[in-house]
Amino acid sequence: MRITDLLFGRPLPTSEERAEHIGPAAGIPIFGLDALSSAAYGPEAALTLLIPLGLGGIHYIVPVTAAILILLTILYFSYSQTIEAYPHGGGSFTVAGENLGDHAGLLAASALMIDYVLTAAVGISAGVGALISAVPSLQPHTLGICLGVLALLTLVNMRGVRDTGVVFLVPTYFFLGTLLVVIGVGVFHALTSGGHPTPVVAPPRLPSLTTTVVSWWLLLKVFSSGCTAMTGVEAVSNGVMAFRDPTRKNARRSLTVIILLLVILLGGIAALCRIYAIGATNPGSTGYQSVLSQLTAAVMGKGWFYYLTIGSILVVLALSANTAFADFPRLTRAIALKGYLPHVFTFRGRRLLYSWGIYVLVALTGALLILFGGITDRLIPLYAIGAFLAFTLSQAGMVLHWKRRGGHGATARMLVNGLGAVATGITTVVVLATKFVAGAWVTALLIPCMILLMAAVHRHYRRVSRETACPDPLQVTNIHPPVVVIPMDRWSRISAKAIRFAMSISPDLHVVHIDSPDVDHGRDELALMWQEKIVEPLRAAGMPEPTFTRIQSPYRLILMPLLEFILAEEKQHGDRHIAVLVPELVVRHWWEALLHNQRSSLLKLLLLVRGNQRIVVINIPWYQT
Amino acid sequence: MRITDLLFGRPLPTSEERAEHIGPAAGIPIFGLDALSSAAYGPEAALTLLIPLGLGGIHYIVPVTAAILILLTILYFSYSQTIEAYPHGGGSFTVAGENLGDHAGLLAASALMIDYVLTAAVGISAGVGALISAVPSLQPHTLGICLGVLALLTLVNMRGVRDTGVVFLVPTYFFLGTLLVVIGVGVFHALTSGGHPTPVVAPPRLPSLTTTVVSWWLLLKVFSSGCTAMTGVEAVSNGVMAFRDPTRKNARRSLTVIILLLVILLGGIAALCRIYAIGATNPGSTGYQSVLSQLTAAVMGKGWFYYLTIGSILVVLALSANTAFADFPRLTRAIALKGYLPHVFTFRGRRLLYSWGIYVLVALTGALLILFGGITDRLIPLYAIGAFLAFTLSQAGMVLHWKRRGGHGATARMLVNGLGAVATGITTVVVLATKFVAGAWVTALLIPCMILLMAAVHRHYRRVSRETACPDPLQVTNIHPPVVVIPMDRWSRISAKAIRFAMSISPDLHVVHIDSPDVDHGRDELALMWQEKIVEPLRAAGMPEPTFTRIQSPYRLILMPLLEFILAEEKQHGDRHIAVLVPELVVRHWWEALLHNQRSSLLKLLLLVRGNQRIVVINIPWYQT
Repeated sequence: MRITDLLFGRPLPTSEERAEHIGPAAGIPIFGLDALSSAAYGPEAALTLLIPLGLGGIHYIVPVTAAILILLTILYFSYSQTIEAYPHGGGSFTVAGENLGDHAGLLAASALMIDYVLTAAVGISAGVGALISAVPSLQPHTLGICLGVLALLTLVNMRGVRDTGVVFLVPTYFFLGTLLVVIGVGVFHALTSGGHPTPVVAPPRLPSLTTTVVSWWLLLKVFSSGCTAMTGVEAVSNGVMAFRDPTRKNARRSLTVIILLLVILLGGIAALCRIYAIGATNPGSTGYQSVLSQLTAAVMGKGWFYYLTIGSILVVLALSANTAFADFPRLTRAIALKGYLPHVFTFRGRRLLYSWGIYVLVALTGALLILFGGITDRLIPLYAIGAFLAFTLSQAGMVLHWKRRGGHGATARMLVNGLGAVATGITTVVVLATKFVAGAWVTALLIPCMILLMAAVHRHYRRVSRETACPDPLQVTNIHPPVVVIPMDRWSRISAKAIRFAMSISPDLHVVHIDSPDVDHGRDELALMWQEKIVEPLRAAGMPEPTFTRIQSPYRLILMPLLEFILAEEKQHGDRHIAVLVPELVVRHWWEALLHNQRSSLLKLLLLVRGNQRIVVINIPWYQT
Repeated sequence: MRITDLLFGRPLPTSEERAEHIGPAAGIPIFGLDALSSAAYGPEAALTLLIPLGLGGIHYIVPVTAAILILLTILYFSYSQTIEAYPHGGGSFTVAGENLGDHAGLLAASALMIDYVLTAAVGISAGVGALISAVPSLQPHTLGICLGVLALLTLVNMRGVRDTGVVFLVPTYFFLGTLLVVIGVGVFHALTSGGHPTPVVAPPRLPSLTTTVVSWWLLLKVFSSGCTAMTGVEAVSNGVMAFRDPTRKNARRSLTVIILLLVILLGGIAALCRIYAIGATNPGSTGYQSVLSQLTAAVMGKGWFYYLTIGSILVVLALSANTAFADFPRLTRAIALKGYLPHVFTFRGRRLLYSWGIYVLVALTGALLILFGGITDRLIPLYAIGAFLAFTLSQAGMVLHWKRRGGHGATARMLVNGLGAVATGITTVVVLATKFVAGAWVTALLIPCMILLMAAVHRHYRRVSRETACPDPLQVTNIHPPVVVIPMDRWSRISAKAIRFAMSISPDLHVVHIDSPDVDHGRDELALMWQEKIVEPLRAAGMPEPTFTRIQSPYRLILMPLLEFILAEEKQHGDRHIAVLVPELVVRHWWEALLHNQRSSLLKLLLLVRGNQRIVVINIPWYQT
C-alpha cells in the first residue's frame, strides 16, 4: 500500500475534515477561477465564427461583447440575491428543486452534470490550445497532451481537497495580473497612437473581403458562442458557506470583484482585438494561434512576458477544469442523497473524496476529449446550454422563493430575479437554436435521457425502501429450525464437516446424492458407506437419522435434479426455511481452481436466481492445507 | 433450447448408449481412414523436399518409398501382436503405462495428444490443398476455408458419435476406388507404352538440373517427411473391442487389408510419379497443385473422373481429421480418469460426448491452422514425431508385456515387437534430428511441458484426495450450535429476517453495526431501534438477547472492521463454528444490481479468502417482489 500512499497520500479519517473559512481575497481565485478563465476561450469562440468575414468581421465583436456584458450584469444582480437567500449554498439543483419541484431539480441536475463535464473538457482543451499557440510543433499531439493533463488533474484530485486549495491562488493572480497589464498597455498604446497602435509582433493578416453581408443569424451564433465566457459565475452562490463571517457579505464582495474583473477582461479583449485587427485562426489546423496569444504578442512582443502570460493561461485553464473535479462529485452526491443516483456516489474514499463522482467525471471528460479530438471549438456548441439552462431554472426558482417568502422588498427582488430568468431563458433558447446542428442537439438529447435514468433510479430505490421497511418489532414466535439439505457426492472430511455443522443447527437433515450413470465407481459403496459411516454412529448415540435420497440423473446433469429436489422440499415444508449446505473446496492457488468443477459456485448462483425467500444458502468452506 | 436441439440434436440419456459391433468390412473405413488418407499427403511431403533437385529428384522417391514400406510391414506384424494381447483396446497410453510405468505412459499421452491435434490440422489443410489444386482461384482463401471446415467438423461432432459412423463408409470406398483405378490405369499405360506413357494432361515441367549431388542428409529428411504416410496405423489396435466376435480375428483381418491397401497406394503413387515425371509444386504459392491432382490429371485427364477423385480426397482428408475428434476426447478422458488432467474431461455432455476434449481439440487445431496459415507443408515437420514416439513406446511396452507373460512363443513375439520398437525408435530419432530446425523442436519442447503440467495436476489431485479422505465414521459428540454474527446497517425486513433465521439455528447471536462517520442519519435512532424493535420483544418472551456491538470506523471502511470483528470472535470461541449471516438483496433486473453496493458479494469473497475452517457463511437472500 506504500505506493498508493505515495501517489494519493495517506488515508484520512473523517475527523480530520475541517471547514474552510475563507475571506474575499482567497474567495476570488477559488470561486472566480472558473468564471475568469472563461475569458480565455469565450471571445475566441465568438471570433472563430467571424473568420469567414475576414477583416470586416472584427467590427462585430464589440457590439456582441456589449450584449454579453449586459447579460453578465443582470446575472450579477440575480446571483447577489441568491447569495442572500441561500447562505448554506444555493446551487441550481437546490434552488430549482426546492422552489420549482423535483422535476425542475432533475432538469437542473442534468444540465449541471453536463455543464461540469464540459467545463473540465473545455478547460483542458483551451489550456492545451494556449500551449500549442506558444509551441506550434506540439500541434499534432493535441489529444495526447489533453489526456495527459486530465491524468495529472485526476492524480492531484485523488489526493483530496486539502492539498488543492493553495494551488489556486498564485496562478490565478498571475493570470489576472498579466492579462490586465496586456489590456492596460494595449489601451494606452491605442490612446497615444490615435487608435492605430503598431503591433510589436504583427498578428496574422486577415483577408479584407468585399462581400461582408452579415445576417442576424450569424450574429446570434457569435453571441451564443461568446456566452461561454459567462459559465462559472454561479460558483460563489454555490459555496457561500465556505466564507468566513460575515458570510453573505464576504461572498457578495467576492462576486462583485469577480464580475468586475470579468467585465474588464472581456471588454478589454474585445476592444483590443478590434483595434489591433486580431481575428481567430482555424482551430485544429497547423498555424493555429489562440486570440490571447496573438493579442499578447501584438501588445508586448514575444519576450519573457509573453511566455509568462501564456503559461499562466495554461495553468489557470487546467485549474478551471479542476473546479469540475470539486463540484461534480459534490453535485452527484447531493443528487444521490435524494435517491436519484446510485448510493455509491455518497461514499467517501480514503482521502475524504466522493471517489465515484471523480471516476465518472474522468471517464466522461476523457470520452469527450477523445470524441472531439481535444479541439475547444468543437466542444463549444455543446457547452453553454447546460450552464444557461441551470441559470434560468435557478433564477426562476428564486422568483418563486421571494414570492413564497413575501414581505418587504419581495416584489423588487422578484423583478431582479425575474429579469435574470427571462434574460438567461432567452439566451438558452438562442443558444439551443443557433447551435443545434453544430452539436447542441447532443446536449438536448442527453438531458432528457439523464432525467429518465435518474427517475428510474429513484423509482427503484423507493420501491426497495417501501418493500424492506419494517414498522413492526421483531416477531419472536413461530421460530423453527430450518430443513437442512446436504448434497453429498461421497464420504469425505468435507461431507463429514457439512453433516456435523448441519446437526449443530437443526435436527431435520436431508442428505441427497445425484446418481450420474457416468460415475459408476462406488454406487454400492455409497449405500454401505451411508450405513457404516453415518447411520450406525448416530443410532448408537440415539440421535435422529438424516433422510437419504438418491436421485437418478439419466442425462448426467447434477445441478438441475438437485435444484428440483430443493424446490420440492421447499414446497413440502410450506412454513420453514430450507437451508442448503454447499460445501466448497478452497484451493491454495488460483490455477488449482481450474482443476475442480465449479459446481459449488454454480449451485449458489442457481439458488440465488431460482430460489425464493425461504431458501437460504450455507457455504461450508474446506480449506486445503 | 430449440435452436441448440436443431444444431446439436436432442440431449441423450446414458441408457441410449450402445456398443458398436462391426465386422471387418465396416472396420476398414472406420479404423483405416486415418492411415489410408495419409497416402494423400505422405508422398507429397517427401516430394516437396526434392523440389530443389528438379527432374533428377524424382528418381529418389522410389527407394525412399521402399524404405517406408519395409517399416510399414514391420509395424504390421508388431500391431497384429498388440491386437492379440489387448482385445479391450491397446492404445499407446495404455500399453506404455501398464508395461513401462507411469512416466512412459505420460510420455506416450503427451505424444499422442500432440499427434491427434496435428492429425486434425494436417487432415484439414491437406484436404483444402486438394480443393485448391482443383480450383486454383481459391488459393488466397486457404486459411479461411480451413477454419470453415474445422467449424463444420465441430458442429457434426457436437451431435455425437451415433450420427458420424455412417458418413465414413461411402467416401472412403470412393477414395480407395478412384485412386486404385488411377494407379491401375497408370500402370497399364506404362506397361503398354514400354515405360514411357503420354500424359493426358501434362504435369508442370520439372527443370532438369545438372548438379544433382544428393546428400544422405537430404534423403533422410525426405524419408522423415514420407513417414507421415504411416500415421494412423495404430487405430485398429486402439479399437479392437468395437469389432464383433471373433473380435481379435476380425480386427486383425481389418488391419491386414488396411496395410495392404496402404502399401498399394504408396507404392503405386511413387512408381507413377517416377514414370510420369511428377514432382511437387511450391505449397502456399500461386500455381500450387497437389501431387495426386497432377497424377490423376496425367493418367485420366481433367474430366468428371478427375473431379470425383479430388472430391473424394477432400472429403476423406476432412474425415481423417474427424478421427482426431473421436480419439482425442477418449484419450483425454483416459488420462483424466487416472488423475493427470482436470476431471472435467471425464464428463459427458448432453449428446454423450466428452465435450471438454472437443473444445480443447478445436481450440488447439484452430490455433495451429492460424499459426501455420493452413499450409500442410509447414505442419509436416511437427507431425511424425508424436506418432513415432507413441509407436516406439507402445512396441517397447509390448516387449515387456510378452516377457512378463512368458510361456510358449514369447521369445518370438518379443523379437517381433522388439524389431518394431527398434525400427520406430530409430525413425523417431531420424525424424527429430532431420526436422528439428524446421519445426520438430516445437513438438520436442511441448512434450516435456505437457508432462510437467500433467504431473502437477496429478500431485494436486493426490494431495486433495489425501487431505479429504475420511476413514473414520461421523463423530457425533461435541456438537455445539455455532456463534452467529449478524452485520446490520439498519432495522428493516431484511435484518428482521436475518435475526429470525439466526434465532432458529443458535441461541448465541452477535449483531454488529459499523458506524461510519459519513452515515450520520440515525446514529441515535439505532440505539433506540435496538431497544424497541429487538430487545423489548425478546425480553417480553423471556428469550436470550443478542449482543450488540457498534464499531467506529474513522476511515469509513465497512468490510475491514467487520472482518476483524469476525476473526476476533473466531479466536475467542476456539472450538466452535462462526456462522456469518450475509443478508443480500436480490434485485429483479441485472441493471438494478448496479444501484446497490456489492458489499454482500465482497464480504462473501473476503471471508472465503481470509476465513478458515471454522468460519461458515450463511447467505440470506431477500427477493424484491
